[in-house]
Amino acid sequence: MKAVKAKDTLSITTKVVLPNDTNTLGNLFGGELLAWMDVISSVAAHRHCKRVVVTAAVNNVSFQQSIAQSSIVTLEAKVSRAFSSSMEVFVDVFVEDHLTGERIKSNEAIYTFVAVDQNGGPIAVPELVPETEEEIERFHGALRRKQLSLILAGKMKPTEATELRKLFMGE
Amino acid sequence: MKAVKAKDTLSITTKVVLPNDTNTLGNLFGGELLAWMDVISSVAAHRHCKRVVVTAAVNNVSFQQSIAQSSIVTLEAKVSRAFSSSMEVFVDVFVEDHLTGERIKSNEAIYTFVAVDQNGGPIAVPELVPETEEEIERFHGALRRKQLSLILAGKMKPTEATELRKLFMGE
Amino acid sequence: MKAVKAKDTLSITTKVVLPNDTNTLGNLFGGELLAWMDVISSVAAHRHCKRVVVTAAVNNVSFQQSIAQSSIVTLEAKVSRAFSSSMEVFVDVFVEDHLTGERIKSNEAIYTFVAVDQNGGPIAVPELVPETEEEIERFHGALRRKQLSLILAGKMKPTEATELRKLFMGE
Amino acid sequence: MKAVKAKDTLSITTKVVLPNDTNTLGNLFGGELLAWMDVISSVAAHRHCKRVVVTAAVNNVSFQQSIAQSSIVTLEAKVSRAFSSSMEVFVDVFVEDHLTGERIKSNEAIYTFVAVDQNGGPIAVPELVPETEEEIERFHGALRRKQLSLILAGKMKPTEATELRKLFMGE
Amino acid sequence: MKAVKAKDTLSITTKVVLPNDTNTLGNLFGGELLAWMDVISSVAAHRHCKRVVVTAAVNNVSFQQSIAQSSIVTLEAKVSRAFSSSMEVFVDVFVEDHLTGERIKSNEAIYTFVAVDQNGGPIAVPELVPETEEEIERFHGALRRKQLSLILAGKMKPTEATELRKLFMGE
Amino acid sequence: MKAVKAKDTLSITTKVVLPNDTNTLGNLFGGELLAWMDVISSVAAHRHCKRVVVTAAVNNVSFQQSIAQSSIVTLEAKVSRAFSSSMEVFVDVFVEDHLTGERIKSNEAIYTFVAVDQNGGPIAVPELVPETEEEIERFHGALRRKQLSLILAGKMKPTEATELRKLFMGE
Repeated sequence: MKAVKAKDTLSITTKVVLPNDTNTLGNLFGGELLAWMDVISSVAAHRHCKRVVVTAAVNNVSFQQSIAQSSIVTLEAKVSRAFSSSMEVFVDVFVEDHLTGERIKSNEAIYTFVAVDQNGGPIAVPELVPETEEEIERFHGALRRKQLSLILAGKMKPTEATELRKLFMGE
Repeated sequence: MKAVKAKDTLSITTKVVLPNDTNTLGNLFGGELLAWMDVISSVAAHRHCKRVVVTAAVNNVSFQQSIAQSSIVTLEAKVSRAFSSSMEVFVDVFVEDHLTGERIKSNEAIYTFVAVDQNGGPIAVPELVPETEEEIERFHGALRRKQLSLILAGKMKPTEATELRKLFMGE
Repeated sequence: MKAVKAKDTLSITTKVVLPNDTNTLGNLFGGELLAWMDVISSVAAHRHCKRVVVTAAVNNVSFQQSIAQSSIVTLEAKVSRAFSSSMEVFVDVFVEDHLTGERIKSNEAIYTFVAVDQNGGPIAVPELVPETEEEIERFHGALRRKQLSLILAGKMKPTEATELRKLFMGE
Repeated sequence: MKAVKAKDTLSITTKVVLPNDTNTLGNLFGGELLAWMDVISSVAAHRHCKRVVVTAAVNNVSFQQSIAQSSIVTLEAKVSRAFSSSMEVFVDVFVEDHLTGERIKSNEAIYTFVAVDQNGGPIAVPELVPETEEEIERFHGALRRKQLSLILAGKMKPTEATELRKLFMGE
Repeated sequence: MKAVKAKDTLSITTKVVLPNDTNTLGNLFGGELLAWMDVISSVAAHRHCKRVVVTAAVNNVSFQQSIAQSSIVTLEAKVSRAFSSSMEVFVDVFVEDHLTGERIKSNEAIYTFVAVDQNGGPIAVPELVPETEEEIERFHGALRRKQLSLILAGKMKPTEATELRKLFMGE
Repeated sequence: MKAVKAKDTLSITTKVVLPNDTNTLGNLFGGELLAWMDVISSVAAHRHCKRVVVTAAVNNVSFQQSIAQSSIVTLEAKVSRAFSSSMEVFVDVFVEDHLTGERIKSNEAIYTFVAVDQNGGPIAVPELVPETEEEIERFHGALRRKQLSLILAGKMKPTEATELRKLFMGE
């Protein structure tokens, strides 16, 4: 399988926040945004491996800033690293100022997808080639996040997670 | 403010998986489930504090098992710990066997909500009182998860996270 | 077939009223609530017989009280009686006070479902065993309602409906 | 207030059954049809009184026949009788044969609406004038149905419901 | 194939504008109305040919007048002319005054559908017989519109479009 | 007002075709695509003028090719010309081959939007500056299309439409 460049997985979607997407304060529901991020991230993962992909995990989603009704919201998803059959995808969310058109980043999330065959069994995916500084940084972080997730799931001992261990030891 | 028992925040919703909720393999989309979990978790957080709540973060969502179209899915959300103005909520997802009625746990996720006033500013929430063994375990884990999230957000030094540090030191 | 206890069919769903669910006065549409009640009642009927069920009739739905946008609404459905291949289901609707959390009953409805095979033909269902006072009262009322519905459909002569007849004779 | 002719309240809507409207057997959900009937009935009631109307009750809905996905379904609603502030509406549902175009009646339901002012309080509505044979028959039946519903709600003694009483006495 | 009268293809649908169908000004989105018009036009085309139909083109849609939330909107679609395997459909949109019930025409659009077999290939459709003055006028205009569309698609030379040519020559 | 470059209005959205978006043949409904195109075109028009925009007209939409369920569909909208208060927008639709990732153009449509103030009255918009060959070609065509639309609406005599006249005269 031929390695894929990160930029070739970039997937963009622009949405307008409708009344039904908002809470009592008139701001976009977190859950609605989670669903939007899942769809566009799955497109990025699909563009990487050209197979059916299913959501395997979601992490590090934070909602620092509310997004008002009628906002124009753009989601950009890009694969950050590929493992044997899984792909980590970063999705960045931007809101557009109605008067200036300036884009302000409002959210970031990390989704993991697995490529599956018709029976739902995992299948191998190509490697990812990061190019820009940000792509490279996210590529390296992906390994730490994978270790952390294996530890949290009880599938790796914390003391074996050499990279993470350094972090906490202050080494 | 009077402390609230974990069991008084329990919120349940039962759904049937419709065609539009499913992918090419005929299984529930991860994103759809994320949205469902957000709604019922927000009800649990609301029951805790009786205020408007907004999603602040999502973590540790894993999708081990696919959920087929027409499945009856039950989501149970319960506040696991309250901090000054935020609440951590665990949501457990169960799928029902059509023939035996047996419930099988298919997912688990952790959402964090913040109680806000009418301007969206954070306001204080009552303490949570865990009672069952599981409630107590999740209550204690919540502190470790909060430290971890502060570290990941760059707001705490790993070496200051005493509890987490023990974990990686094998102490 | 083994008889089923009423309590084992209890099905609960909690919803939040969104803008699109409301009329010009900002209150939940009757039609939307009818659809929600149908889904959760069908889950209760399915839990009773573990077969595909289809709605056969709806009766005695009254809307005494309006339900405002953003309300937290809980629907509880429970089979009240099983006949040869049909099941009568009661669904009770509660609205939660945002400040006190107190639940106020706002609606009640009676749905009838039929268990069907893959060709849509009716199939036998187990008996229902009522236990609480309310379950027993609804169990007995189900027979009167069935007679009434047969009369209204022209399938039974009013003078043969012995139980109903007593009611109108003042006996 | 000027009386309104039944035919001037006739409201028609034609729908196509989509995948999300159907159950495992590929047939239209009862609950979806209930919601469709509510909307078009409310239009008929509105055309009668030209005020905001809210659903007050639903009765006598039966589902004798399944409606398959992709069916063209036509709903026709017409006010059958007006009381002081309420209106009874009949809605007839027809399915169209894809090859011959023949319309087959598949359902019938009776909805009751109340006209309300901006605070939700009931307000007077004009009288209804039935003209065709069917309109007249439904107009007369409406009184019996109102008595029955008052009895079921415990607001009238069965022995006072003179019309209904005759029915059960075989007089 | 037996010719079909225009009036036998008339298809009507009445809708209520919900919050989610509206823009920041509280008026119906153009795109939502386009989707509604497509569905009811496809029903008219289906009634003409009794086959599966797919949208082939949309033209001459203008939105002169905004339609407010809660409006009752009626769409009336009727085939205006049939060609070998395609049908031109006119859809007229009316909004109802809430107080007087008066219907005001707000939009008009022309959709073209093609009848297809199970593989999506085009199949012959019956001729259309216009009867009223308006039906006859639209029937004749359909030919000019077809020429224009062939020219715009580069499939006919403008100088060969004899009817259109007259128009621009002032003959 | 400062003129705006065509490329600065480019708006992209990527969608996945769900079951409810499809007809009996399993292909995307024309009406659904019309609604999607309207939303993304309105974003392009908004990016041009930074004001609320409302759909004024739709033309030249053709559906040459069916789009199957589960397809990844990308819509790209760009303003092609601005008039006093209106903007013409071209939207191009591409479908992605699941195996090769190759994008195939499946549709093209032209939407016109008007910029409005808070009362819905038209307001002036900046000029558009086309740069690429395609942008320039569409910019020039916009004038012919405007003349044609004025003629069809009876607001301009065909003999006055000098540019269009040349076309039909073969000059």
